[in-house]
Amino acid sequence: MTNRKEVAKLAGVSEATVSRVLNGIGPIKESTRQRVQEAARQLNYELNAVASSFARGRSGNLGVVVPHVPKVHLFSTYYFSELLGGIGDAVHAKGYGLLLLFRDPSVTYDYVSLYRTQRVDACIILGSSAIPSETEAIVRLAEEDLPYCVMDQRFDHPRLNIVAADHERGSYDAVKHLIGQGCRRIGFLNGAPQYSNSWDRMTGYRKALIEAGIEPDESLIYEGNYSRTSGRMAASSVYANLERLDAIFVGNDRMAIGLMQGLRELGCRMPEDLKIFAYDNSDAASFTEPPLSTVKVPFYEMGRLAADRLLDLLANKDQGNPVINEKLLTDLVIRRSTGS
Amino acid sequence: MTNRKEVAKLAGVSEATVSRVLNGIGPIKESTRQRVQEAARQLNYELNAVASSFARGRSGNLGVVVPHVPKVHLFSTYYFSELLGGIGDAVHAKGYGLLLLFRDPSVTYDYVSLYRTQRVDACIILGSSAIPSETEAIVRLAEEDLPYCVMDQRFDHPRLNIVAADHERGSYDAVKHLIGQGCRRIGFLNGAPQYSNSWDRMTGYRKALIEAGIEPDESLIYEGNYSRTSGRMAASSVYANLERLDAIFVGNDRMAIGLMQGLRELGCRMPEDLKIFAYDNSDAASFTEPPLSTVKVPFYEMGRLAADRLLDLLANKDQGNPVINEKLLTDLVIRRSTGS
Repeated sequence: MTNRKEVAKLAGVSEATVSRVLNGIGPIKESTRQRVQEAARQLNYELNAVASSFARGRSGNLGVVVPHVPKVHLFSTYYFSELLGGIGDAVHAKGYGLLLLFRDPSVTYDYVSLYRTQRVDACIILGSSAIPSETEAIVRLAEEDLPYCVMDQRFDHPRLNIVAADHERGSYDAVKHLIGQGCRRIGFLNGAPQYSNSWDRMTGYRKALIEAGIEPDESLIYEGNYSRTSGRMAASSVYANLERLDAIFVGNDRMAIGLMQGLRELGCRMPEDLKIFAYDNSDAASFTEPPLSTVKVPFYEMGRLAADRLLDLLANKDQGNPVINEKLLTDLVIRRSTGS
Repeated sequence: MTNRKEVAKLAGVSEATVSRVLNGIGPIKESTRQRVQEAARQLNYELNAVASSFARGRSGNLGVVVPHVPKVHLFSTYYFSELLGGIGDAVHAKGYGLLLLFRDPSVTYDYVSLYRTQRVDACIILGSSAIPSETEAIVRLAEEDLPYCVMDQRFDHPRLNIVAADHERGSYDAVKHLIGQGCRRIGFLNGAPQYSNSWDRMTGYRKALIEAGIEPDESLIYEGNYSRTSGRMAASSVYANLERLDAIFVGNDRMAIGLMQGLRELGCRMPEDLKIFAYDNSDAASFTEPPLSTVKVPFYEMGRLAADRLLDLLANKDQGNPVINEKLLTDLVIRRSTGS
C-alpha cells in the first residue's frame, strides 16, 4: 500500500504538506495543492483521515468543552468569543481541527471518555467551576496524565493545568484607582461564587480598601451572575444606597451595562452621582454612555497560549506532560464612567 | 465481540443512550451514566468512536467552515457568533460534534475533501462569497450530492443549498421608514461587493427611493467592508456631504458605530444633523448613544435551521438530498438614531 512518504517524495513536498492538502487544511498554495493531488492520483493514494487517525491513535482535533445553557447565546459573550478566537488561531496555525463539545453544566461531564473514544487529542475546558464533582472530573484528567487545560478557573489542588488571568490584581488595581480619584465608599457588584474569578475579585477589592484604611462594608456588596439582566436587577438595591456610595466596582462589563441602564431609569446620573468601574474591556465598554472604565483581560491571548501549549505537548510527546500554570496580567482602561 | 445492543440491554437503556454515555455527550442523568458504564465494564465493551465511525463511515461531526482573517476576532462579530450559536444548539440537541474548520479566504478551499477524508458528515459554509473559484467549489459539492449548506450568500446558479435572510426586503423596509419620517436625501454606506448581501441591500435601497419618486444619487453612496474601522473612515466623506443628507442607511451595526464615532468627533449631532439606520440588531446597537435604529436579522434562527435541516438529511439518507432553500424575514427595530 502506498504511504504518505511516497506521495511527499513524488510531489517534492513534506509529509505534513501532503496531510494538509489531502485533509483540506489551508492555507496551501494552489500549485502545491495540485502537485500533491496529482502525485496522490498517480500512486493511487487516498488519505482516509479517520482510518489514518485510527492507525495513529489520533483524531487531529483539539476539543473545546463549553457549557450549554438554553437561551444564552454563548458565542455572543465577549469572554467566550475572545477565548475561542485565540484557540481558533492557534489551531488554524498548526493544522488541527477545533471540535466544540457542549456540556450541560448541571451534569458531571466525563472528560476522560473524550480521549478514550479518540474524539480529541487534547482539550481545553471553558466555563469550569469549583463545585466538587467538577473538581473531581478535572483531577481525573491530571491523574491519567492526559493533555488538557482549564481556562481561567483555579482549584484547591496543586498541579492542575490552568491558564488564567490575575483577577485579584486586576480588581485591586481598579479599586485603588477609584480610591486615588477620591472615592472612599466603594460598593462591589460581584458575580456568582462558584467561579474562582469571583473570589479573586473579592480578595483584590478588600485588599485595596484595607490598604487605604477603609473598612469593607458588607452592606455595599451585591451579587449577580455575570448577565446583563442580573446587573439591571441590582439597580434598585444600589440606588437605595446611593447616598452612601461614591463608586461601584462591577465584576464584568455586561453586569455594569445592565446596572447603568437600570440606574439611569431611576434618575441616577453617572459619573456625577455614582462612578462605575467595570471588568473585561469588551467592545461594548467603549460604546456605552458614559463609556466604561474597565479592567482589560487578555482573553484572546489566554486562549491562544493554552492551545499553543497543548499542541506543543502533542508534538513533543516524549517530554511527558509538564504542568501548565500561567497567570496573565490585566490592565486598566480609564474612560468617562469614573469621572474625568 | 460485544456490541452496543448487548450493553443497552444489560443497562436497560436505548442504544443511543449507550453511545451518548460512552462518547461523553450530555446531558445524561448520573445514575444512567453509571449503569451504562457498569454494563460496558461487565461485558468488556469499550466504544472506540473513531473505529466505530470508520465502520459506519461517519465522523459524528458537523463541519462549520469559517474564514480565517488574521487580527480579526471572528467570534466577537455578532454575525458569526449568533450563527454559530444557532448551529451549536442544533448540534448539541442531536448529539453531534461541531468541527470548526478555518479557511484562508484568499485560497480556494477544497470542500469535497472534508467528506472524502471523513472529517465531517455534513458542512455549513459561513462567510462565503460570489467570486468564481468559490462558486465553482460550492457547485462541486452540489454535483457530488454531498450534504452541505451555504449561509446567507446567493449564487448565480439554481439548486444550491442556502439558508439566507431577505436583505433586499430588510433594506427596503429601513429606507421606507426613513422616507416616512420625512427624509428625502438618504445616503447609503454599503459593505463589500463580493457578498450577495451587499447587492441585495443596494437593490432594496434603490427600490424604496424610486417607489417614493426619489432619484438615487450616486454621490451619496459610500463603500466600506463591514468593519468598524471602515465606518469610521467613511465619516469625513459623509461629513463633507452633510448639507445634502437627511439620513444615512448603513449595511451593518459595526460600520454604523464607527461612522457615528467619526462623525461625533467632527461635531455632527445625531439624529439632529443626520439620522442613521443600521443593520443586524447586534447587542451593541442598543448601547450606543444615541441607540441605533436597525434591521433585525435572525442569525441565530438561520444557523439553527441550516444545522437542523442537514442533521435531518443525515438521519434520513434514503430520502436523498432535497434542495435546501430558505429565506428568513427581517424586522425593523426603531430607536433614537432615527429621531423620536
